[in-house]
Amino acid sequence: MPTLFLTRRDIQKLLNMKEIIAAVEQVFRDYAGGKATMPAKAYLSLQNGDLRAMPAAIYGAAGVKWVNAHPRNPLQDLPTVMAVMIYNDPATGYPLAVMDATDITAFRTGATAAIAAKYMAREESVILGIVGAGRQAYTQLKAHAELFDLKLVKVYDHSELATQRFTHLFPQYNMQSTSLDEAIDSDILCTLTPTQQPFVRRECIKAGTHINAIGADAPGKQELDPRILTDAVVVVDNLEQATNGGEINVPLKKELYSVDQVYATLDEVITGKKSCRENAEAITVFDSTGLAIEDIAVAKIVYEKVRNLPGYMKLDFVEA
Amino acid sequence: MPTLFLTRRDIQKLLNMKEIIAAVEQVFRDYAGGKATMPAKAYLSLQNGDLRAMPAAIYGAAGVKWVNAHPRNPLQDLPTVMAVMIYNDPATGYPLAVMDATDITAFRTGATAAIAAKYMAREESVILGIVGAGRQAYTQLKAHAELFDLKLVKVYDHSELATQRFTHLFPQYNMQSTSLDEAIDSDILCTLTPTQQPFVRRECIKAGTHINAIGADAPGKQELDPRILTDAVVVVDNLEQATNGGEINVPLKKELYSVDQVYATLDEVITGKKSCRENAEAITVFDSTGLAIEDIAVAKIVYEKVRNLPGYMKLDFVEA
Repeated sequence: MPTLFLTRRDIQKLLNMKEIIAAVEQVFRDYAGGKATMPAKAYLSLQNGDLRAMPAAIYGAAGVKWVNAHPRNPLQDLPTVMAVMIYNDPATGYPLAVMDATDITAFRTGATAAIAAKYMAREESVILGIVGAGRQAYTQLKAHAELFDLKLVKVYDHSELATQRFTHLFPQYNMQSTSLDEAIDSDILCTLTPTQQPFVRRECIKAGTHINAIGADAPGKQELDPRILTDAVVVVDNLEQATNGGEINVPLKKELYSVDQVYATLDEVITGKKSCRENAEAITVFDSTGLAIEDIAVAKIVYEKVRNLPGYMKLDFVEA
Repeated sequence: MPTLFLTRRDIQKLLNMKEIIAAVEQVFRDYAGGKATMPAKAYLSLQNGDLRAMPAAIYGAAGVKWVNAHPRNPLQDLPTVMAVMIYNDPATGYPLAVMDATDITAFRTGATAAIAAKYMAREESVILGIVGAGRQAYTQLKAHAELFDLKLVKVYDHSELATQRFTHLFPQYNMQSTSLDEAIDSDILCTLTPTQQPFVRRECIKAGTHINAIGADAPGKQELDPRILTDAVVVVDNLEQATNGGEINVPLKKELYSVDQVYATLDEVITGKKSCRENAEAITVFDSTGLAIEDIAVAKIVYEKVRNLPGYMKLDFVEA
């Protein structure tokens, strides 16, 4: 039985945001129902960064994403984050495919944030604010555009060039390069920076705003003034991961915020166990750290799409 | 930068037991000196088996082995265990290679047991007993033959066919198909079965025997009468893994053995921190569960050997 090898170029042609949003929403329902499993990530610390193993299983699919984070890589023209997934048949453990998972990661992160906004933001949300116009901005925009009728997209990045590159790539939307405070003044705000200095001030957040806090994904990182968290309805993708490295990690350590103040996990919100938009005035925050079940859900779509197609590399890999 | 793909056939041509023994011994020294890291395995439980992520880093190499154990696979002509390793540059996280790790696993397990025997068995050991003539028997024999001047190899398996296949494959050694009790009566005994019923009775173990207990690698498995453990000098490869699923796991749960009775870890023995063969009469037991540092040490040899050779598949895998 051959193993399928899908390079980053292959994967990029196969990802479709609409399909991914549907699959990611379903995997959160499956997880809530005990039909998706995800043991804790294993972290391997290295001198210049780290590597993480993210295993997960859903109906008909199992696998592990092995992903690095090396912040100084751009200095030598390499991406900070590169991910490879091994995709297995759960019935036998057979490695059905090895695929680049760099774009799978970006797409599922965008999809999950847009799903969170669907359940948490005001229904009439039409203004999207994006702070940080790096790679993740592209998939955040794609995903929110699937679920909201965006009238205006405000973009701020400290690099003018990054903002320009991003806004020019999406002529179909009303994109505006703005100041930081103007971008923050949106119906839905996506914060997408790797900072350790919270730059979103409490004063700038108007009533009714929904924030997707995406940037913080490791201990020490934070983007939001902790007073936003204490005033908001906060939903996390996974409590253990958020506590360890999500937006809440620094405020927790500084005792400016407590775990009891977290309102719900995203699967509880999606399944309707908890409802978090009680009125138009509430500020809501989704703290995203990225889950292995999201990755495997997307990998399954990709694999099912190409398993019987010619034109992809197949090798007798684990057979002697 | 291309990623190298090494199939099982490629790997089988590249493995050399002498080199592997040297590398595995060195990695235990490195580990003892804090120069090799190995976070705990991540387990993914599945209906018919499990998958395990085994990350590790040593000088110049990092990676994860992703390996399944599906006991019913042979019913559909698939191996019980199949392993894939992603091999990274620790400085950047770049995935330098993806390689089949099935035979890497078998070779490093054999190498580690032979190294344990070098430090734990009587120096004049010349009779090797092998119980269980499956795949692991091949690499156990190869490894012990590198380090001992074997005069006789006694083999027992409940399958006559397995024994015959094994003994015919090594005409260069004095191989003998024997009863179970005769095989146990050896200078060095390797137990290589997946049983949950301890079959090595205390009465059969003569003074001075060294036992490599390899079979038990998951909760519930055991091969040795627990009285052997209480009477022997017991060395484990890793205390956490051994406690969880090694030879000592069932006796620990039944309170027939306690963790305090474990004498040392293999790295302590190799570095001379603990000496375990005080006299010719002692019974010694090495409880092997298999470590991620052993895998990465072997993967590094393989990668260094072929990185600049033509004839292996290279793909621009993680680049867009």
